[in-house]
Amino acid sequence: MKRITFLLLALATLAAGTVFTATTSRHAAAQEVTPIFVTKIPAGYRDWRFISVAHEEGELNDIRTILGNDPAIKAYREGKLPFPEGTIIARIAWRYVPSAENNKIFGREQSFVPGEQPPWYLQFMVKDSNKYAATGGWGYAQFDKDGKPGPESDMKKCVPCHQAIKDRDFVFTRYAP
Amino acid sequence: MKRITFLLLALATLAAGTVFTATTSRHAAAQEVTPIFVTKIPAGYRDWRFISVAHEEGELNDIRTILGNDPAIKAYREGKLPFPEGTIIARIAWRYVPSAENNKIFGREQSFVPGEQPPWYLQFMVKDSNKYAATGGWGYAQFDKDGKPGPESDMKKCVPCHQAIKDRDFVFTRYAP
Repeated sequence: MKRITFLLLALATLAAGTVFTATTSRHAAAQEVTPIFVTKIPAGYRDWRFISVAHEEGELNDIRTILGNDPAIKAYREGKLPFPEGTIIARIAWRYVPSAENNKIFGREQSFVPGEQPPWYLQFMVKDSNKYAATGGWGYAQFDKDGKPGPESDMKKCVPCHQAIKDRDFVFTRYAP
Repeated sequence: MKRITFLLLALATLAAGTVFTATTSRHAAAQEVTPIFVTKIPAGYRDWRFISVAHEEGELNDIRTILGNDPAIKAYREGKLPFPEGTIIARIAWRYVPSAENNKIFGREQSFVPGEQPPWYLQFMVKDSNKYAATGGWGYAQFDKDGKPGPESDMKKCVPCHQAIKDRDFVFTRYAP
């Protein structure tokens, strides 16, 4: 039953359009459920300022950067929690690959750089305490390099992990000085 | 003799002040030698846009981000070489450390994040074809977390490695899409 509810919720959310460009009819549909997922890539995210970087091993095996829009950066720099309404945090990941051209110059296996974009290329957390009340005020999003939203199976993984860091307003990444 | 010349050059450059805030007297001194090194941290670099990320193993064992000022980003996005005058590329590095707090949540050793700032915390390449004619039009810089310029022994390592990628205008980093 829980699974069916989730699927319905996910389908309804996907069908309901976007946070940013919802038409009136879409908006009306979105009100019928509590959305969890963001289905539109936030404009201009590649120009946002830098928060931090990470390498994830295991199944992911990616290298990633974390960028933030202006409210995100302001909150990080001031050390203030919770993040304000309108905060968006972007996570961009690439396959973690050795750089043959760099290593040739350095004369050893040393340099690891971004490779292809994996299916989990882009992720976003969008702060909207009303819209995403059911998930701690954050909407989650994932897109591949073609802008296609992530599968429901992937999206289900967001909330449980982020729930574990509720005392940091559900955000893993710390600001790199 | 070569070493003495280098030392004199390095000392003269350090004494000669900065690319950005040289006084008239400093500027006059700087003209007497061809500077290689940039001795002033470019203002506002932490707000610049994101180019790419890398992990360097070996002695460095750091994780790093590469940011660029507006001319740098424009040139990267347009795929144009050489980089225009005024281009500055910033490289910020941190010790590569496991994230105990992330790994606890994920239930495995997976996540590597920025740790302390190493002595080679900040590096910059500044494009000024006249000023840095002797080194392919680029001035190099390194600073620790207190803003102290890197030792001459470290600075000597910049040019020979970058020389090997002359056909990419001496710049290692490729733009991460």
